[in-house]
Amino acid sequence: MLEEHIKKAYNESAKGKRKGDKHIEVEKIREYILSAENIIIPNWDEKKLKSINKILKEFGLPKAKGLKIHTNAADLTRMPTITKALMAVDTTDADLIIARGRLGAPGSGSMLIIMDHKGRILSAAISSPHIIHGKSLEKAVEEELKTALQRLGL
Amino acid sequence: MLEEHIKKAYNESAKGKRKGDKHIEVEKIREYILSAENIIIPNWDEKKLKSINKILKEFGLPKAKGLKIHTNAADLTRMPTITKALMAVDTTDADLIIARGRLGAPGSGSMLIIMDHKGRILSAAISSPHIIHGKSLEKAVEEELKTALQRLGL
Repeated sequence: MLEEHIKKAYNESAKGKRKGDKHIEVEKIREYILSAENIIIPNWDEKKLKSINKILKEFGLPKAKGLKIHTNAADLTRMPTITKALMAVDTTDADLIIARGRLGAPGSGSMLIIMDHKGRILSAAISSPHIIHGKSLEKAVEEELKTALQRLGL
Repeated sequence: MLEEHIKKAYNESAKGKRKGDKHIEVEKIREYILSAENIIIPNWDEKKLKSINKILKEFGLPKAKGLKIHTNAADLTRMPTITKALMAVDTTDADLIIARGRLGAPGSGSMLIIMDHKGRILSAAISSPHIIHGKSLEKAVEEELKTALQRLGL
């Protein structure tokens, strides 16, 4: 479903004729997210899982399950949140993954990403480092997920 | 300079003792950005370069130079903006890179990232797909760069 549009976009870019995201592409991403049946959150943290499920419910999406995997290892990579999400792609049959963690280098603050079953990034949101914004973890995660869904028109 | 703090953070994560970003880490990233002398923007687009330079000036940073490289190729990768920034790491002696492009899959909207001379991500900001937010390119880029700097307390 997404593949056909990604192929078209790649061909446009290769020919130097790409003019930015198209309505149909954003629509296909929205459809993919809304039709998710098995949502996985690679995280030990029950607070994050609760916050994410609260927002998923508001958007009419099914409840996500936590994935108990050693995600600390992701923090030794250059993009911890992307690495966490890929851990879920590689160890579950999730069709949608929502991961939250560090953006980049230590001190770079946090990122939430929405990834599909093949490891493609569909959406994301970024927050300040906690020590700067001072919000509770729950509040920060809820706002990030809302932003990540709303920015696609959901 | 950053290396020492990254090593400490990695050791904390490996021991399961990491508690999130520290003030000193965010401070070191701010210092790195503020001491940049050679800022490169991997982009053909003069509009983006002008918008970025306008904001850099507001934050007391030196003028960035454009890098004329075939960045369309980055749009055939999974994280086009990260790929563009790495192109600048690998082909210039920039100490700071500011790249702007697509976040992930076609339709996923845009991202601006601030990367250091070794390819580490220091900050970022994310926007809706243009067809959703409807802002001019200039306005969108200015807001993203401001957000990416301010979220670190700059």
